[in-house]
Amino acid sequence: MKNNYNLAIIGLGQIGNYLYNEINKKKSDIENKTGKKIKIVAISAKNINKKRKFSVPKSIFYKDPLQIFKNEKIDILFECIGLSDGISKQVVETALRNKIHVITPNKALLAKHGDDLSILAEKNKVNLEFEASVAGGIPVLRTIKEGLATNKINKVFGILNGTTNYILSEMENSNQSFDKVLQKAQKLGYAEPGNPKLDLNGFDAFAKVRILSALAFNNRISKNKCIMEGIEKIELKDIEIASQLGFRVKLLGISEVINGQLFETVHPSLVSKKTYIGNVNGVMNAVIIEGKPVGQSVLQGEGAGPGPTSSSLLSDLLSILRGNIKYPFGISNRKRKLIKSFNNENYTNSLYLRFDVRDKQGVLSSITNRLAKYKISVKRIIQTPDKKNKKATIVIITHKTTEINARNCLSLFKKNKNILKFPTLIRLYN
Amino acid sequence: MKNNYNLAIIGLGQIGNYLYNEINKKKSDIENKTGKKIKIVAISAKNINKKRKFSVPKSIFYKDPLQIFKNEKIDILFECIGLSDGISKQVVETALRNKIHVITPNKALLAKHGDDLSILAEKNKVNLEFEASVAGGIPVLRTIKEGLATNKINKVFGILNGTTNYILSEMENSNQSFDKVLQKAQKLGYAEPGNPKLDLNGFDAFAKVRILSALAFNNRISKNKCIMEGIEKIELKDIEIASQLGFRVKLLGISEVINGQLFETVHPSLVSKKTYIGNVNGVMNAVIIEGKPVGQSVLQGEGAGPGPTSSSLLSDLLSILRGNIKYPFGISNRKRKLIKSFNNENYTNSLYLRFDVRDKQGVLSSITNRLAKYKISVKRIIQTPDKKNKKATIVIITHKTTEINARNCLSLFKKNKNILKFPTLIRLYN
Repeated sequence: MKNNYNLAIIGLGQIGNYLYNEINKKKSDIENKTGKKIKIVAISAKNINKKRKFSVPKSIFYKDPLQIFKNEKIDILFECIGLSDGISKQVVETALRNKIHVITPNKALLAKHGDDLSILAEKNKVNLEFEASVAGGIPVLRTIKEGLATNKINKVFGILNGTTNYILSEMENSNQSFDKVLQKAQKLGYAEPGNPKLDLNGFDAFAKVRILSALAFNNRISKNKCIMEGIEKIELKDIEIASQLGFRVKLLGISEVINGQLFETVHPSLVSKKTYIGNVNGVMNAVIIEGKPVGQSVLQGEGAGPGPTSSSLLSDLLSILRGNIKYPFGISNRKRKLIKSFNNENYTNSLYLRFDVRDKQGVLSSITNRLAKYKISVKRIIQTPDKKNKKATIVIITHKTTEINARNCLSLFKKNKNILKFPTLIRLYN
Repeated sequence: MKNNYNLAIIGLGQIGNYLYNEINKKKSDIENKTGKKIKIVAISAKNINKKRKFSVPKSIFYKDPLQIFKNEKIDILFECIGLSDGISKQVVETALRNKIHVITPNKALLAKHGDDLSILAEKNKVNLEFEASVAGGIPVLRTIKEGLATNKINKVFGILNGTTNYILSEMENSNQSFDKVLQKAQKLGYAEPGNPKLDLNGFDAFAKVRILSALAFNNRISKNKCIMEGIEKIELKDIEIASQLGFRVKLLGISEVINGQLFETVHPSLVSKKTYIGNVNGVMNAVIIEGKPVGQSVLQGEGAGPGPTSSSLLSDLLSILRGNIKYPFGISNRKRKLIKSFNNENYTNSLYLRFDVRDKQGVLSSITNRLAKYKISVKRIIQTPDKKNKKATIVIITHKTTEINARNCLSLFKKNKNILKFPTLIRLYN
């Protein structure tokens, strides 16, 4: 077995730069733990002169990452650019084809091209490792692939995005609006300053759900159309009312096999304050795995930031240095199946519905009549008048109903002039 | 690399028997995930005719486990007897010397002889795996050794014994005495029917603390004298009073490096009901790891029972089948150090003190005077009279003080006739 490994880091943003520093700092610890010698022989970024927290040497710097494959003998490559396609994909593919192990935190790339890339890795007998792509520093992928390897898992769910969890927690704590808290999150570095959209609209959490499904169920990455909702429509009002009712709003990612069919979703949920998941606050992530015979396992930790991410990237590095070639998704690609998808229309939940209405007679009954017509029974109603503006807020918690029934029922409210905007819907987590 | 692996299971109690069945059930899944073929070629137990949940074939049965080494070619051996010495130690040593990989859930053996056994494994270039020895189905050792491999860990603590956690939770829920609930636990199979002592007195949790310390701090297994207290003295009264004050009683295991010195302990603690750890109830185990750069990681799951244990045993099996030889404690034995031990006398906590006293004038002031003399300041006093019996219960929550100061202060109460028995002391978890 080889004793010396040459490393390359492609992308020197917040994560790549931190990783570069960590590897140099922990070189001897890594060598002690694995008996292997490591050396960073190439780094690449768009701009060598960008101000970085840790300085990088010009002698090993490449502006064009593809040039590295021509000039250097690389054994392990870190892809830290983070695009779902383009240069990220090109670098990873070229590396795997050249029999170079790849480590990446890039969930967008994995969720989109993971199947093809893992076939490429398997064919070339190298590792493709992506522990950092889900839940930052929590070794959840390794836990599913190795720690719980022989369990029959039927459900994985949790809080998979630290940015949105911070925003929801902070809205509750500070009584500030979504926009105010988003600004705060951007200041603290929890949300992208330019474009926080992929966090807020659920896309980031959803990519993680796809990766978790693939690992938990030995499934090829699904392309199913799914319910994906973000937190952009959650108002402070919703958080306050939920709190009065004993709930918190959490953006949950869920992957579950129901009657042999795969159901994946990301949406805001009302969860009881008394539950475990209802108490995972701030930037924390939490993943709950239900399997047999192990029962329920919970993993919680910081879900984002260069520290936790780099902890996972280095765990991948050690795994490779320890010398075993593993299937990227825990099982040979030939053995991975494609589970039939669950019909989203049949997804069933109790609902929280908030109507902003004109304070006029008959409005409430027009709503309840419509619900009754669709056999959606009401568990609880809270009406709060806003006399000054001649408005009122009506919140209804319903008994369980399906997606399709709820959508059909609510559709009519678009046309009702007394209902000032389309009702806000938040599903209750069962 | 080999393609066929012969397995032996030594000990067919609850765990060995369940494991035997699981391996046969999951054979093809394991072969898919690793590309290796496995076969159980030998099993051993004291009594072949004992009634077992799953039947075992007589054709591969050995009464004397040592005979197996002479008759069979074994590659991987499961030790499921569970003694800290004797035949357990003999079987494991013989296996390692014969270059047979060993997998065991035996924490008592590991905590006592782990260093020597790991040297033996390293010398013979085989694996000694013991994921199941700590926290049942939660892959906490793998997480420390691999998932968080390059982090600097400074503290590991948690609820490490499911039996005691069940008893404490159930006392609170059912308002029943320790003895009643212990009987219930034995009926449910959570506590050993014959001798639950090692769970109740903290010994079991303490063995796990020693193993966790060794892994988290690259330390040889410490032999330090430590504070080890069980839950035998906890009365329903304490749980009720704690609850009124917003606390729960939990048996915590703690391993921490304080100023470069190793501190290990197991003792009952009052923890706030508002904390995460205060809400880990029933047979659940939870381990909290504090490291840099990863921050705080939490792992929670079922801590006992054949299902979770067997999940961990099989994860060890897969790890071996995937072909990498690993240092049992994550690092070569030559590199493991022996951290100086922290002076237990300086361990500092707020204290919960319960005095059962005669309802006489001057008793309270004799207690508070004594505390004042030792500069232990009082945060809270609750006195509950028991007029009928002319007794009273005085509970005092103190500000922080050291072990030695508390012990010196309390020693006098042995002689005080108005204090009916030596006060119950429970430390508050900070």
